[in-house]
Amino acid sequence: MGRDRERLRAIDVDVHPEISSWQEIAEYAPAGLRHRVGRQGGPPLARHGFKIVGDPFGEAPRPPDGKTHPAVNPHWVKEQYLDARGVDLAILTTNLTSLGVQPNVDMAATFAQAVNDWLLETWVRPFDCFKGSILIAPQDPAQAVAEIDRLADNPGMVQVVMGSASESPLGRRQYHPIYEACARHSLPLALHLGGEGAGMSPPSTAVGHPSTYFEWYAAIPQNYMAHIVSMVTEGVFEKFPTLRVVLCEGGIFWLPHIMWRFDKNWKAQRSETPWVKEPPSAYILRHFFSTTYPLEMFEAAQLGQALEMVEAERTLLFSSNYPNWLYGDPFAMIADIPEALRRRVLVENALALYGDRLFG
Amino acid sequence: MGRDRERLRAIDVDVHPEISSWQEIAEYAPAGLRHRVGRQGGPPLARHGFKIVGDPFGEAPRPPDGKTHPAVNPHWVKEQYLDARGVDLAILTTNLTSLGVQPNVDMAATFAQAVNDWLLETWVRPFDCFKGSILIAPQDPAQAVAEIDRLADNPGMVQVVMGSASESPLGRRQYHPIYEACARHSLPLALHLGGEGAGMSPPSTAVGHPSTYFEWYAAIPQNYMAHIVSMVTEGVFEKFPTLRVVLCEGGIFWLPHIMWRFDKNWKAQRSETPWVKEPPSAYILRHFFSTTYPLEMFEAAQLGQALEMVEAERTLLFSSNYPNWLYGDPFAMIADIPEALRRRVLVENALALYGDRLFG
Repeated sequence: MGRDRERLRAIDVDVHPEISSWQEIAEYAPAGLRHRVGRQGGPPLARHGFKIVGDPFGEAPRPPDGKTHPAVNPHWVKEQYLDARGVDLAILTTNLTSLGVQPNVDMAATFAQAVNDWLLETWVRPFDCFKGSILIAPQDPAQAVAEIDRLADNPGMVQVVMGSASESPLGRRQYHPIYEACARHSLPLALHLGGEGAGMSPPSTAVGHPSTYFEWYAAIPQNYMAHIVSMVTEGVFEKFPTLRVVLCEGGIFWLPHIMWRFDKNWKAQRSETPWVKEPPSAYILRHFFSTTYPLEMFEAAQLGQALEMVEAERTLLFSSNYPNWLYGDPFAMIADIPEALRRRVLVENALALYGDRLFG
Repeated sequence: MGRDRERLRAIDVDVHPEISSWQEIAEYAPAGLRHRVGRQGGPPLARHGFKIVGDPFGEAPRPPDGKTHPAVNPHWVKEQYLDARGVDLAILTTNLTSLGVQPNVDMAATFAQAVNDWLLETWVRPFDCFKGSILIAPQDPAQAVAEIDRLADNPGMVQVVMGSASESPLGRRQYHPIYEACARHSLPLALHLGGEGAGMSPPSTAVGHPSTYFEWYAAIPQNYMAHIVSMVTEGVFEKFPTLRVVLCEGGIFWLPHIMWRFDKNWKAQRSETPWVKEPPSAYILRHFFSTTYPLEMFEAAQLGQALEMVEAERTLLFSSNYPNWLYGDPFAMIADIPEALRRRVLVENALALYGDRLFG
């Protein structure tokens, strides 16, 4: 592409294009299933009963008509968000976070395939600034692998994405073929919170179903904690040493606790999992990446220490979660990141993780 | 008692006496149920399938015969642990952590009552140094309240204790009568990890059942995170403003993450829970207490900052988790606590929380 990497100002690894019309998606589905994808009222998608109170977009830019969703039109998103805020590249993660807990696994695989082709056609190919993620439905690992294989060489795709909401802890062996495919194609795997408690997932907390969106949202990073522990204990990173996993929208301040308790216990308990050869924190710091939306905004000294403990100079990626800016402006959120780290978080860590795919 | 409070060296808020013989407990049960409590092989108690690999006692003192459990004999525990290590008072939390997820609620209530009377008779009354906790089975709140009322005025009891493993998030209304009873009697409520994943509890993580003890143990503080979020969002502390809750064996480094994400979301979402009048962190810092076993042993500067963020000068209590010292010596674990905090953690915070009951 000849694009000068040094001139990049920001890479946003988590932008959510909105599907305004499932009829439009249906055109990308196999003929025999189009009626299910494009049905009146939208396709059958698992839903939990939690919903944001009030305006979900917060400080995000808004189309002037006051009605249009701020993420349906790629031209508008490019102009009003990317160009306006100095973001050169945006990685699209879609927003079907409950797809992986959809009971009908064949429909889930069909939605993934259709959304992927729609995304490439309408958002990715016409622009230099948008890159796609291969959406998969992990509940049928074979179809998920087939979808990864189908699109891995497409220059518009830079990673695989799936909801962190799942039937089982993600270290379980049924998911290993997916990790094998990601590793084989050198594709990072992004997880995104959102579908927890819907469809076939267990209750969204370890103690059962929460009562309100407020309770639900405060607790969902616990799903990442449990998945990380599961993936490390089940030996995923010994089996797939090049696999890298991006945790979207979970924060970072909980990670030191997990690493310490986990390492401490490893010393005594590793004979039960002899394949876990290094302290768990070594796997975590090497294989997991976090995103800045929402980064916990504590005092600068407190933030600085947490950034150091999670090795943010390598592992933290700028994300906006556009257009869901309920928590505030994504640049305000990183205002206290020390200057020495800033460019790494905004640009270089993403360049190191995604590499040339960003310019494919 | 005339005991000079200034001379106290340490108060240990989490010691686990071991039940060596259920036949002995059965003597304290109602005649008609004794055969169930004292049955050959022990009573029916819910169990998950996870078990520590190797020696669970780590650096704890051991009876010289090499076979006797280090926590069956109160005289021996007093001499070999308390006196030897300069601990003046120990609060006994029993170790029936899965009692609250026992499917037969009447048996669970019976076990609680019998264990409480046994504890008072054999550990508490004969000694100055041991104080008891009123064990309850929260799955039948009415029986739990009756047990609290029965023993609240007993000078040997300083708090109520129940497993954090439960059928539902602990903010749910069915549990409120228990909190009402604790508040009415000014009894702190201690929660203890351990039964997660057994009996009627949901899977022990938010993403499903873990595979190994190693995975299980690394992830269980997530139960505390979810319970805290539930209790605050459901308005427990507006309803019972004097209720105080002790979280045993969960660490502290995860708490700032919970507080930040929770506060941030409260600003936008509180109309769904109008009874949550203050930022969640205000309730958390006022109503929850943590224990030092196992305190995350990071570098002193990192630890110092976390202690500050959780207001450890009020909220952190020394605990040994005796005899389960797999993680190391409980005094070594607090070696890096700044000198200015040390006496508060070892003595004063417990004095402030339990008050005169410690000397009843």
